[in-house]
Amino acid sequence: MINIGVIGYGYWGPNLVRNFAETPGLRLAAVADLNPDALKTVKRRFPAVEVTQDYTDLLNNTSIDAIAVATPVNTHFELGMAALKAGKHLWIEKPMTQTAEEARRLVDEAEKRQKILIVDHTFIYTGAVRKMGEIIKSGDLGDIYYYDSIRVNLGLFQRDVNVISDLAVHDFSILQYLLEEHPVAISASGTNHFPGTPENLAFVTLFYDSGVIAHTNVSWLAPVKVRQILMGGSKKMITYDDLQPSEKIKVYDKGVSFTDDPDEIQQMRVGYRTGDMWAPQLDGAEALKLESEHFVDCIQNSVTPQTDGVLGSRVVELIEAATRSMQNRGETIHIDIQE
Amino acid sequence: MINIGVIGYGYWGPNLVRNFAETPGLRLAAVADLNPDALKTVKRRFPAVEVTQDYTDLLNNTSIDAIAVATPVNTHFELGMAALKAGKHLWIEKPMTQTAEEARRLVDEAEKRQKILIVDHTFIYTGAVRKMGEIIKSGDLGDIYYYDSIRVNLGLFQRDVNVISDLAVHDFSILQYLLEEHPVAISASGTNHFPGTPENLAFVTLFYDSGVIAHTNVSWLAPVKVRQILMGGSKKMITYDDLQPSEKIKVYDKGVSFTDDPDEIQQMRVGYRTGDMWAPQLDGAEALKLESEHFVDCIQNSVTPQTDGVLGSRVVELIEAATRSMQNRGETIHIDIQE
Amino acid sequence: MINIGVIGYGYWGPNLVRNFAETPGLRLAAVADLNPDALKTVKRRFPAVEVTQDYTDLLNNTSIDAIAVATPVNTHFELGMAALKAGKHLWIEKPMTQTAEEARRLVDEAEKRQKILIVDHTFIYTGAVRKMGEIIKSGDLGDIYYYDSIRVNLGLFQRDVNVISDLAVHDFSILQYLLEEHPVAISASGTNHFPGTPENLAFVTLFYDSGVIAHTNVSWLAPVKVRQILMGGSKKMITYDDLQPSEKIKVYDKGVSFTDDPDEIQQMRVGYRTGDMWAPQLDGAEALKLESEHFVDCIQNSVTPQTDGVLGSRVVELIEAATRSMQNRGETIHIDIQE
Amino acid sequence: MINIGVIGYGYWGPNLVRNFAETPGLRLAAVADLNPDALKTVKRRFPAVEVTQDYTDLLNNTSIDAIAVATPVNTHFELGMAALKAGKHLWIEKPMTQTAEEARRLVDEAEKRQKILIVDHTFIYTGAVRKMGEIIKSGDLGDIYYYDSIRVNLGLFQRDVNVISDLAVHDFSILQYLLEEHPVAISASGTNHFPGTPENLAFVTLFYDSGVIAHTNVSWLAPVKVRQILMGGSKKMITYDDLQPSEKIKVYDKGVSFTDDPDEIQQMRVGYRTGDMWAPQLDGAEALKLESEHFVDCIQNSVTPQTDGVLGSRVVELIEAATRSMQNRGETIHIDIQE
Repeated sequence: MINIGVIGYGYWGPNLVRNFAETPGLRLAAVADLNPDALKTVKRRFPAVEVTQDYTDLLNNTSIDAIAVATPVNTHFELGMAALKAGKHLWIEKPMTQTAEEARRLVDEAEKRQKILIVDHTFIYTGAVRKMGEIIKSGDLGDIYYYDSIRVNLGLFQRDVNVISDLAVHDFSILQYLLEEHPVAISASGTNHFPGTPENLAFVTLFYDSGVIAHTNVSWLAPVKVRQILMGGSKKMITYDDLQPSEKIKVYDKGVSFTDDPDEIQQMRVGYRTGDMWAPQLDGAEALKLESEHFVDCIQNSVTPQTDGVLGSRVVELIEAATRSMQNRGETIHIDIQE
Repeated sequence: MINIGVIGYGYWGPNLVRNFAETPGLRLAAVADLNPDALKTVKRRFPAVEVTQDYTDLLNNTSIDAIAVATPVNTHFELGMAALKAGKHLWIEKPMTQTAEEARRLVDEAEKRQKILIVDHTFIYTGAVRKMGEIIKSGDLGDIYYYDSIRVNLGLFQRDVNVISDLAVHDFSILQYLLEEHPVAISASGTNHFPGTPENLAFVTLFYDSGVIAHTNVSWLAPVKVRQILMGGSKKMITYDDLQPSEKIKVYDKGVSFTDDPDEIQQMRVGYRTGDMWAPQLDGAEALKLESEHFVDCIQNSVTPQTDGVLGSRVVELIEAATRSMQNRGETIHIDIQE
Repeated sequence: MINIGVIGYGYWGPNLVRNFAETPGLRLAAVADLNPDALKTVKRRFPAVEVTQDYTDLLNNTSIDAIAVATPVNTHFELGMAALKAGKHLWIEKPMTQTAEEARRLVDEAEKRQKILIVDHTFIYTGAVRKMGEIIKSGDLGDIYYYDSIRVNLGLFQRDVNVISDLAVHDFSILQYLLEEHPVAISASGTNHFPGTPENLAFVTLFYDSGVIAHTNVSWLAPVKVRQILMGGSKKMITYDDLQPSEKIKVYDKGVSFTDDPDEIQQMRVGYRTGDMWAPQLDGAEALKLESEHFVDCIQNSVTPQTDGVLGSRVVELIEAATRSMQNRGETIHIDIQE
Repeated sequence: MINIGVIGYGYWGPNLVRNFAETPGLRLAAVADLNPDALKTVKRRFPAVEVTQDYTDLLNNTSIDAIAVATPVNTHFELGMAALKAGKHLWIEKPMTQTAEEARRLVDEAEKRQKILIVDHTFIYTGAVRKMGEIIKSGDLGDIYYYDSIRVNLGLFQRDVNVISDLAVHDFSILQYLLEEHPVAISASGTNHFPGTPENLAFVTLFYDSGVIAHTNVSWLAPVKVRQILMGGSKKMITYDDLQPSEKIKVYDKGVSFTDDPDEIQQMRVGYRTGDMWAPQLDGAEALKLESEHFVDCIQNSVTPQTDGVLGSRVVELIEAATRSMQNRGETIHIDIQE
């Protein structure tokens, strides 16, 4: 049995606590939060759990094996490092840290201490993203041409992170999961329409050496909510609409083909073909539940998490690079890949 | 009665010919095309119209008052200039020319000869875009924050122009029509997935001094067809879905607002409000019909066309700038505004 | 403070319990259910609430003022009558009873004892149905022509009630709420595709003396879920799509008009007009919360509930009549209106 | 080469003329219409075709082999019978005649004279309906449970036929095509909201001995246009949305299953399963073009048309029965099947 303590019971913490409490192999031991009202809520729902305003109580508690950090981003590094140094396995919310440098230091520390470090990129554990992964890995799409995502809605404006860190973060983690290569350059544009607030709208392009191009359009200022990804390959194409109650993933037997027919060359060299569409049944299990079980498995069997610190670090690198490009109106930022 | 001759009876020419033939005040006098089969089709449908493979026949015909150029883009400048020099009014397809320099020379020539020059940015004459114009000009949106467009589908790959010139051209003309200012910088990314073909996918951001940011996502390589624009202002927001059979334009009484409430400031400084949605009835008249009538009016009453050569030139400038930025992975291109 | 006891903690009971626990003026005193596991769940969530397998404990408890009955339909009458005879106010799930005769006896008993009797037709308390009521009562639709509803999905097959009782019940209650008149005849068709099970698919038409015609299409055997109502009037028309996350209600400025123009009469006598569409913002409050508060208000201030026993009885009459017609392949059943 | 004459150049006639003019094996010989303006239009578009106001000119013209009747329904029988008696093959618009008796007399006459009689139920020749036919005939749906259609929109009100004859006619022909059995009873309800006009809204149920139940909901008085069919079988289910630009037909691997598990029996005896969805690519050829080619093939090779007079007669029988039931508020009408 793995005893786990949770630091932070704000927006996302309650989801962690609820899932950890029901995960076989995990025992929810303690919750820390600065807000006494939050702790009262925990106590009412989980009378057996210890609560405290001082997170060091969790670090000092030798019966606790793992710590989950669900606090604002600017505290992730300090709390995560302290947890690792206290000899705990670490579950950390996304984005992992504010800087890639900090992220790499957490990865190094976890490695040195042989502790599991998982970053909570929940999307990777959804039935939809896992199905996309299966399809791509099977080769059904052929060569990947592009990834094109839109994540827009009205609000919620964040106080301390920009819309790239809040929404594009999902695309960055999904791209790391789906593709076998890393982007080599990035160009982003965006703006904050309200002085003194983080950027609330951004457009980010990622370039890959293979020719893949990826793009994400993120905004807190759209009148309608959209969560849609298009992916095109040389053989098939995928749409993923996360707001559909069913048939979220559709696979289109469509593509382009080249012709040497002189008549057609007159007009264009590329034709296209269309065929059936297929919407596979998706696993409806809650992503956070699967991720919690995966965390247990990683600790018990020394498995590397699917969303490990390396993946989490790369995501932070992309947020940093995209933000820098955005603040320079699209300036190309080259990304250093340290394999 | 204005006698008009049409050069080019390929993809778009038949639409011009059909409309011109039914426009009061216009008389369809002649059609020129290199392809004898095309001319046969014209003759069958319009027995009274003269046909020729030599476009100079139209220029030399002194009874012809106006020429419409509907040939490939790389011939626009030469044919348009010849028409103006022959003393004809000029209707020219979009994009107006290959280079902004050429476009400006056409504008100058038309001005010198006091001839009407209209660029066929058809979208500007649709009920949907005109309704957007009305709403914006009425001030109902408040300050404009952004314009965000997506125009993707599978095919048709063009042989000689890239996807910016083919699809983003619509957004550039709509932006020129809707906004009272010109972009000051542009950043674009995109790629051609097939060697030797023009770029088939592109993402373009336009920056304005007022803080407005505009973006268009264009592709010939998407499994589904999308034609959607979002526009946000300080008071209201608009969606425009061109593929809907009705309710193409929706106006949302939604927006963000700021708070000084200390509790909310804790979390964020920006709240949002939502209200009714309203889908105005649109004028269903064919855009090309309205544009043909407008052309007649411009010639008869010396009116400047809504899509005149100046607007057309600016669109070509934006295509040039976006293409240059795209070929440099998002490099910021500053746009020189010569009022 | 009104003490309330709940009988039945199966499918719907938990929703009642959760809402009652949070309704000002109500105190959740006790829960009865035959299933000890259900009671354990109650106790864990609401430690202060008394639980029992014997519902008569609730009736005999003189500190309890009101009883909610959330058991299978075939027990509604017996439990409801016992509650009223024990001097309790009564909240009863829909459909109110198995027969209209039973329903009327409950109404009489409640009246005799001056107790509040509310039937839980939750839909009536939704923002969408209340907005429809407002629009109709304002006269904006003009004369009502028709009501046309579809409620289909896959499963859940009920064991003891047919699909009319399960799904058409919503339309019957909404019609009673929206219209000022009662249907005078009914014709229904439907079938059970699986021997020994209740009818799983039905089509029901209700006729009104004013000329209004209402129809509902209900099924447990559809591959997609649909919840949609169309209503047409002489001035405007409404669509209500309950599965939309927003803009559930749309009001169309559309209608038909008559012509005396001899040319048009040649073809048809009726033309039509179309105008704007408007989607009003709806109150997003939880319907059950509003209904709980309304129940408190009714008890404290002797108000007649909006979904009182009379409305509930009429709904049961319609279920009875529709089921009888359905079992005779559409035979017209005349409905006796005892005002 | 088959010479064809067309009687009636009103709403549908122009589509016939255009298709016949382009069908290999057919020669469009003559068009008759009472309206001289219609004939002028024909002459302008097809200078070589003879036009006349007197349809008997076509019957008396011995070079004409086939007649298409595209006039108002109340003239179908007289014109069709005259054409057959003049020894012509007959193409007749739907519905075939006003009464089933008349329809059967046409069938008999065509048989006696060994002439081809095709009824223009165009829908049967669409890619979507043919694909449904393929799927059903392959057995993929299993046993058919139901057919549920909705065809509603605003206008066009017909002067001389009711909405069943105008819209439900499509469902009746599709059902005859898809199912191997005939309905044994019918129940319909509907109304005319405007005195002196035909019924503008109707709900029709068809009963089959096998247990299949079919329903169609038709209206000229809906604010939105809907054209949707659901079909359920024991193995799979289909949706057909005719207004979608692509993926009109979707096949769902969904169904219900029975359980003997005592725990589940407690609640219900029927469970359900869901699987993948599949949208087959459809043949996009114009239905009327295929039908014209089929007519040629039938004449040249003595083939029975897929939409022959027998099918057409059954459709008229169903219109008659449904209208009679509708006028008696759902009264069950038994249908006599004369095989």
